[in-house]
Amino acid sequence: MSKEITSRSADYSQWYNDLVIKGGLADHSEVKGCMVIKPYGFALWEKMRDQLDKMFKDTGHVNAYFPLFIPKSFLSREAAHVEGFAKECAVVTHYRLKTDPNGGGVIVDPAAKLEEELIVRPTSETIIWNTYRDWIRSYRDLPLLINQWANVVRWEMRTRLFLRTTEFLWQEGHTAHATAVEAIAETRQMLDVYAEFAEEYMALPVVKGVKTPSERFAGAVDTYCIEALMQDGKALQAGTSHFLGQNFAKAFDVKFSDKNNQLEYVWATSWGVSTRLIGGLVMAHSDDSGLILPPRIAPLQVVIVPIYKGEEKKQELDAKGQELVKSLRAAGISVKFDDNDNARPGFKFAEYELKGVPVRIAMGLRDLENNSVEIARRDTKEKKTVSLDGLTEYVKTLLEDIQNYMYAKAKAYREAHITKADTMEEFERLLDEKGGFILAHWDGTDATEEAIKEKTKATIRCIPLDNPEEAGNCILTGKPSTQRVLFARAY
Amino acid sequence: MSKEITSRSADYSQWYNDLVIKGGLADHSEVKGCMVIKPYGFALWEKMRDQLDKMFKDTGHVNAYFPLFIPKSFLSREAAHVEGFAKECAVVTHYRLKTDPNGGGVIVDPAAKLEEELIVRPTSETIIWNTYRDWIRSYRDLPLLINQWANVVRWEMRTRLFLRTTEFLWQEGHTAHATAVEAIAETRQMLDVYAEFAEEYMALPVVKGVKTPSERFAGAVDTYCIEALMQDGKALQAGTSHFLGQNFAKAFDVKFSDKNNQLEYVWATSWGVSTRLIGGLVMAHSDDSGLILPPRIAPLQVVIVPIYKGEEKKQELDAKGQELVKSLRAAGISVKFDDNDNARPGFKFAEYELKGVPVRIAMGLRDLENNSVEIARRDTKEKKTVSLDGLTEYVKTLLEDIQNYMYAKAKAYREAHITKADTMEEFERLLDEKGGFILAHWDGTDATEEAIKEKTKATIRCIPLDNPEEAGNCILTGKPSTQRVLFARAY
Repeated sequence: MSKEITSRSADYSQWYNDLVIKGGLADHSEVKGCMVIKPYGFALWEKMRDQLDKMFKDTGHVNAYFPLFIPKSFLSREAAHVEGFAKECAVVTHYRLKTDPNGGGVIVDPAAKLEEELIVRPTSETIIWNTYRDWIRSYRDLPLLINQWANVVRWEMRTRLFLRTTEFLWQEGHTAHATAVEAIAETRQMLDVYAEFAEEYMALPVVKGVKTPSERFAGAVDTYCIEALMQDGKALQAGTSHFLGQNFAKAFDVKFSDKNNQLEYVWATSWGVSTRLIGGLVMAHSDDSGLILPPRIAPLQVVIVPIYKGEEKKQELDAKGQELVKSLRAAGISVKFDDNDNARPGFKFAEYELKGVPVRIAMGLRDLENNSVEIARRDTKEKKTVSLDGLTEYVKTLLEDIQNYMYAKAKAYREAHITKADTMEEFERLLDEKGGFILAHWDGTDATEEAIKEKTKATIRCIPLDNPEEAGNCILTGKPSTQRVLFARAY
Repeated sequence: MSKEITSRSADYSQWYNDLVIKGGLADHSEVKGCMVIKPYGFALWEKMRDQLDKMFKDTGHVNAYFPLFIPKSFLSREAAHVEGFAKECAVVTHYRLKTDPNGGGVIVDPAAKLEEELIVRPTSETIIWNTYRDWIRSYRDLPLLINQWANVVRWEMRTRLFLRTTEFLWQEGHTAHATAVEAIAETRQMLDVYAEFAEEYMALPVVKGVKTPSERFAGAVDTYCIEALMQDGKALQAGTSHFLGQNFAKAFDVKFSDKNNQLEYVWATSWGVSTRLIGGLVMAHSDDSGLILPPRIAPLQVVIVPIYKGEEKKQELDAKGQELVKSLRAAGISVKFDDNDNARPGFKFAEYELKGVPVRIAMGLRDLENNSVEIARRDTKEKKTVSLDGLTEYVKTLLEDIQNYMYAKAKAYREAHITKADTMEEFERLLDEKGGFILAHWDGTDATEEAIKEKTKATIRCIPLDNPEEAGNCILTGKPSTQRVLFARAY
């Protein structure tokens, strides 16, 4: 397979696919819309998952596991939920195959039809709240702070690796509370956890906000989100946290007796991020040579490539390389010494560049004589000759520098791409010529939101938290407005 | 819910269910045959999973993720595999629901019928080998050492929590090799990893062996297994490792060019353990008061319960307790200080006994005066007054002692329940009166194996590795035999 990468300017979408596939993150499968997450991509997901899991546990959550299948009737219980989710989903209708009497391999056994069809979970509010009914009796059982790591299926017509796949991996938190105040605090807390993860670990600056009613999760009272900006100027929703009110408690009859022995419906939240984050990570940071991964979640932080001719000095280089590996590992740095004979150094350099390994150390014979190595950082491609003395400390600091630089660069790009528009004309021109987020006045109606979307393909990504009040006029209708909201074309 | 546990002697099966449900490990769900793994049970699974994952990575494996769905035709590709797996499975036939025009909620949209049905994976050899075809070109791509943590579905008619559920969680390793020798070595290596995990972490002694042809995995050339013994004298298959020969490579046309540029079919293995292990863990160690968990995989190793009347001395106890928590945590021990006011100490003692927490520390006012605490170990229920000085070291050693004692006890039971039988009469009497493993001669035919199973409900669990040669006669047919094989009634 050619490792040639399409450039961003030539074809942004093809560039993305090239990075994902040739960078070893994922591949298409023969099952329509489903992807294979390859070992390097899965190692990246493991780093992200483990960090998120730690943050969930640090905020008092525990993990559990609920069934993959949801009885069809459960989906109809919550009126808004069924509208949003009981549509494009995988339906299990039979539970047995049999040998085709006409010799055509195996066929579905018509005698093994399920009485009630089962839906492969598109999200688990219904099955979980049906379970919570048995788990919650009194205020002493609350709050219930549960998270699940799972696969979910939504039958998408147009799919893209990581960004939109029929099956994807995610986590879904489902919490139960005695009061609305507590549930709202939980919703906001988890939004903060997501924002912290995106910014501190993925080096991805995000805008925290609340969705308009038309963009809310089906069944939510309020949907909070974090929105990130990609290099092509399109936005990506990177995580959502929902305040569900008492909607699911009412749909599944989940009540608790409070301190005064009164029966009340339970208050709920749910929140999730998925493998979609990997798509966002790729699109926010990478360049035309390949992936650029932030050190804190890179599966491999440092690669050491020895450079030599003939066998003569190889042993010496190997010994020095292994010594360095040991020292870096002891400092908690993940490192690989690539002494594979089948590939030339130049090929290896290109390969690790493609895979986005943050730091590359090249170690040649002359370097050895000078007690130094050549260090290349992936983000800026800067190279430097560095002494072997104190190298581990140097690399440690360099990894932090790279992490910070990646965030600063993405943030500067994002800041330069939040623009105000005061007229529809300006709005459309900005969308076409500059892209990015656009702050504009909106009259607050679904109809206007929809009309702007029809006209421009831009949607309201969110109403930013702590949004300043500002009197103005809706860019479409001219009606009065009290604040600007954040528009963008989005993935 | 009453926390009363049925005794083993009264009803072993009910005892097991009581432990699983009342011990907080799992619960039935409203989806037939599917369970909910509750937070405490999931925390146990996480400990097991993380340790296994480490052992897989230490032996050079990486994780990846393949689609949940398998096109129906894939199952028919390998002749033996289709016989074993294309039977009781969940079949996805449609991809959309719609609102019932007659007002009956949602119904399956008949227009959204899949051209080819999708099977929810019962195991992933077919979809993975279909993918490996694209990943393997040359001997340089081998070995491919991949593992997947996933949910799988097998439509079981009679289910039991953890032991046999329609959906379960597991890991499945799928490796590809250039030679049969290498693949067989991998199969055996992973069997050893499973045995080491069972014995060192679960404190569960196992017999390593190879299955008879009739008990082989569908599509395997050889199936290796580890077999454990439960307290009711029944065996439990705790893990399997399969040498698949070139069967799947041929079925999915996976070839590689070897060092001489010759095209050859790839050699395969697969190996798996599942949440079933939790069922085995419960049944091997627990008693009539509840679970007994081995310290190395217990979600919580130590609980500290302060005992006081009135508020007066509470602060002093709390301070001392928190100090102890800090010291134990610093030593890598997981510990909870339970100062919940809503429950009396006696209630808490029973609760932690039920949950199998290995070490309980009770801390009363008099203890405080004497600079001591009362320590109870869960396995033997032994209590001891121990000085606070050097307590952390004491607890550390005690946890090791408990781990070793649990293994030794289970091993002694297992050793006492491996019995030789030389006649059918003796064989049946042993099965009914003593249970356990029975070493008996067998003539090596499927027909005899089946006849013995029909007559006694006992199956050949395995032919132990390194089995001594011994001339004898088959207990059923009297035909000559060269070795004893291991029989038992099994879960």
